[in-house]
Amino acid sequence: MQKTEVSQIIEARWVLPVVPRETVYEHYAVVINHTDVIDICPITTARERYTSQQVTTLDQHVLMPGLVNLHTHAAMTLFRGLADGLPLQSWLAQHIWPAEAKLVSSDFVYDASLLSGAEMLQSGITTFNDMYFFPSSTIEAMLKCGLRVNAGLVVIDFPTQYANDADDYIKKGLDVRDQFRNEPTVTFSFAPHAPYTVSDETFENIVTLAHQVNIGIHSHIHETKQELADSNQQYGLRPLSRLANLGVLGPNVTLAHGVHVDESEIELLAEFGCSIAHCPSSNLKLASGIAPVHEYLKKGVNVGLGSDGAASNNRQDVFTEMRLAALLAAGNSYDATAVSAFQAIEMATINGARALGLSDKIGTIEKGKLADLTAIELVGVETQPCFNPASHLVYVAGREHVSHTWVNGTLKYHRPNNERHGYFSDIEPNELTGIINKWQPIVSEYT
Amino acid sequence: MQKTEVSQIIEARWVLPVVPRETVYEHYAVVINHTDVIDICPITTARERYTSQQVTTLDQHVLMPGLVNLHTHAAMTLFRGLADGLPLQSWLAQHIWPAEAKLVSSDFVYDASLLSGAEMLQSGITTFNDMYFFPSSTIEAMLKCGLRVNAGLVVIDFPTQYANDADDYIKKGLDVRDQFRNEPTVTFSFAPHAPYTVSDETFENIVTLAHQVNIGIHSHIHETKQELADSNQQYGLRPLSRLANLGVLGPNVTLAHGVHVDESEIELLAEFGCSIAHCPSSNLKLASGIAPVHEYLKKGVNVGLGSDGAASNNRQDVFTEMRLAALLAAGNSYDATAVSAFQAIEMATINGARALGLSDKIGTIEKGKLADLTAIELVGVETQPCFNPASHLVYVAGREHVSHTWVNGTLKYHRPNNERHGYFSDIEPNELTGIINKWQPIVSEYT
Repeated sequence: MQKTEVSQIIEARWVLPVVPRETVYEHYAVVINHTDVIDICPITTARERYTSQQVTTLDQHVLMPGLVNLHTHAAMTLFRGLADGLPLQSWLAQHIWPAEAKLVSSDFVYDASLLSGAEMLQSGITTFNDMYFFPSSTIEAMLKCGLRVNAGLVVIDFPTQYANDADDYIKKGLDVRDQFRNEPTVTFSFAPHAPYTVSDETFENIVTLAHQVNIGIHSHIHETKQELADSNQQYGLRPLSRLANLGVLGPNVTLAHGVHVDESEIELLAEFGCSIAHCPSSNLKLASGIAPVHEYLKKGVNVGLGSDGAASNNRQDVFTEMRLAALLAAGNSYDATAVSAFQAIEMATINGARALGLSDKIGTIEKGKLADLTAIELVGVETQPCFNPASHLVYVAGREHVSHTWVNGTLKYHRPNNERHGYFSDIEPNELTGIINKWQPIVSEYT
Repeated sequence: MQKTEVSQIIEARWVLPVVPRETVYEHYAVVINHTDVIDICPITTARERYTSQQVTTLDQHVLMPGLVNLHTHAAMTLFRGLADGLPLQSWLAQHIWPAEAKLVSSDFVYDASLLSGAEMLQSGITTFNDMYFFPSSTIEAMLKCGLRVNAGLVVIDFPTQYANDADDYIKKGLDVRDQFRNEPTVTFSFAPHAPYTVSDETFENIVTLAHQVNIGIHSHIHETKQELADSNQQYGLRPLSRLANLGVLGPNVTLAHGVHVDESEIELLAEFGCSIAHCPSSNLKLASGIAPVHEYLKKGVNVGLGSDGAASNNRQDVFTEMRLAALLAAGNSYDATAVSAFQAIEMATINGARALGLSDKIGTIEKGKLADLTAIELVGVETQPCFNPASHLVYVAGREHVSHTWVNGTLKYHRPNNERHGYFSDIEPNELTGIINKWQPIVSEYT
């Protein structure tokens, strides 16, 4: 039989495709042509049917869909851990906001996003959902390093160095979309920052425009008790009800946090098909609380995982969020089966893809989808013995076990066996060192 | 000036001594003679005063006291992740207990403990507080690999392969103590397993004997709501009140978990000077709940950190527990300052040492204490920028950043720069591979 020539074959000890659910294939191959997965089959079958110049053998690895980081502010990576440990209000008002007001520029955002892109690629993340000022600089950094980005076209109702007023933010956002709309690894959402920073009128404008240009909406919701109290005082409504009244809610809407919600609000989110970006590390660190993830899942709300920005979590790392999401759901609901390892993996992959309207392209390893893939090397005494690779991905492994990250069929990060640090296909180590050396002294004035 | 010849000097970018509190020295040296720290001073001063054949330079590292794992069952490492994700009772009754009943032997315990010792050393742990059957086998494994162990002389009121009845457990425990009492890296506690597995009479015997031979007591307490309900039904008392009545409580007592306690019980623990081994990963994973750590600390209860066994956490890793303890305390108390990074580090070091009665010997880097030390290499994009090394140890770093572990002044684990896997001074890699190859197929019959 004539073999089909393909651009790439990856042979792995285990393949965890996410769809079909709760499945781990052993000794399987993923066959890739250009950007697309064209087959998933036993290694023996792949060797009979296909031939390629590029065969990668992963004999101690799990190959899984690339992780989706459903909520972050990549450019805050240069504020990693800045002045943390303070009460929330003084941390924001005396450190983070002054640093942002003074430092955030197109250059800063490019440099910080490239650093964040490197961290995310080496953590097995292939797509992230961003929200920050100067989104074109974040996109430029991602076009360089290769990470897929859903860029938030940020809108708030007060002036910053980036824009003057809501109309200016919206205009700049639409320009960014026009500039990059043909890039295959870039998508967009409007990102009205939060109900407490965006007026009714601005929300209504955004809903109209998002519908016209056919993009989603990304915002923060019900993160803290204070937010609810303030909204009740100002609007006589909780923020979710206000957004529902304004026509904001819908299946193209991703809301970060959702920590404090009652049963009717969970039902509202389910009814409108909104997605929640669960950010457990950030919610704990900023003392916001614990989101009722098991209740969301029970009611059919789509829940993905977000690292949040590096100022409020310190790790751009979806492995940590998977483990914490599964653990917290069990501990908080007194039910050890609340979120299974497979469910945590779904949250970190297909659920994130679904939230971004990308579930037909990424989030699982299936024929016809794009080859956004992550390999995790289960070696080292800490991984032994291994009875269940899915459980190990969630409870044992960390981002340090990631050995390969592919986006759109192209290898973007690779750590050779037994080397501590990996290599980025499109970033030189001295570029990252240059960024740190330039900005660390400047940012440290705000500690 | 004549320089003093010493056995070892470690020069570090940062030294975090734990005492004085909230202190990070920059460009400091720790000077060691044989097993003891004899000076801590600026590198420049150390070079004027001391000379040594053995100088270690850690120019991108934090040097800190070795971590103390205050509660584990090291020999359960061969059950890592076994059948996890099931409801608690069926997981225990249909998987863990049958596997233990069939497999646990002196050989099993030695092999599993050696694997666990390797994992703990490479995770920066230098001392652990153990509780399991065949403690002499765990001790033998630690004498081989070099980890300091406080061995639990386990006692339960039903027969196992290890012993027939309470008297037999106690007799075997005392024999173990006699056999190893002169080993400098071995100490002992009586380990009556838990209030629900040990009778009043046995507890009373243990209190008398522990006083006679001057060792502490290590048990489980108030781990689940079920435990409290069962105790109320059987004894008409909650377990802590029962132990108080039996004279068990005192400053030499370490109680694991303490998840469900009311204010008066926290005060009782403070009054008696008991220590709590907080095991946040295990408490979440087994759906036990969240211990009120910020309340314990406010009332002056000494709280250390435990990984618990690898069946119920999957990682023998105090870095994960530090991060989770700090995060959970903040999120659970709605106070971002509930447990500071420095407090989490104290819990992982001096508080653990204090619980074991070893605070005059280990748990801080101070003149006159033993050189139990851990070096953490803060390199890699995920660690940059760094404004505060203490915050980074808790929120950014993981056990994968550990580069050196010394116990009693001797290097027991070392990972060279840019190598993925380190080397154990006293374990050959093929010994660990042999253990896995032998036991993985046998244990996997219980998945």
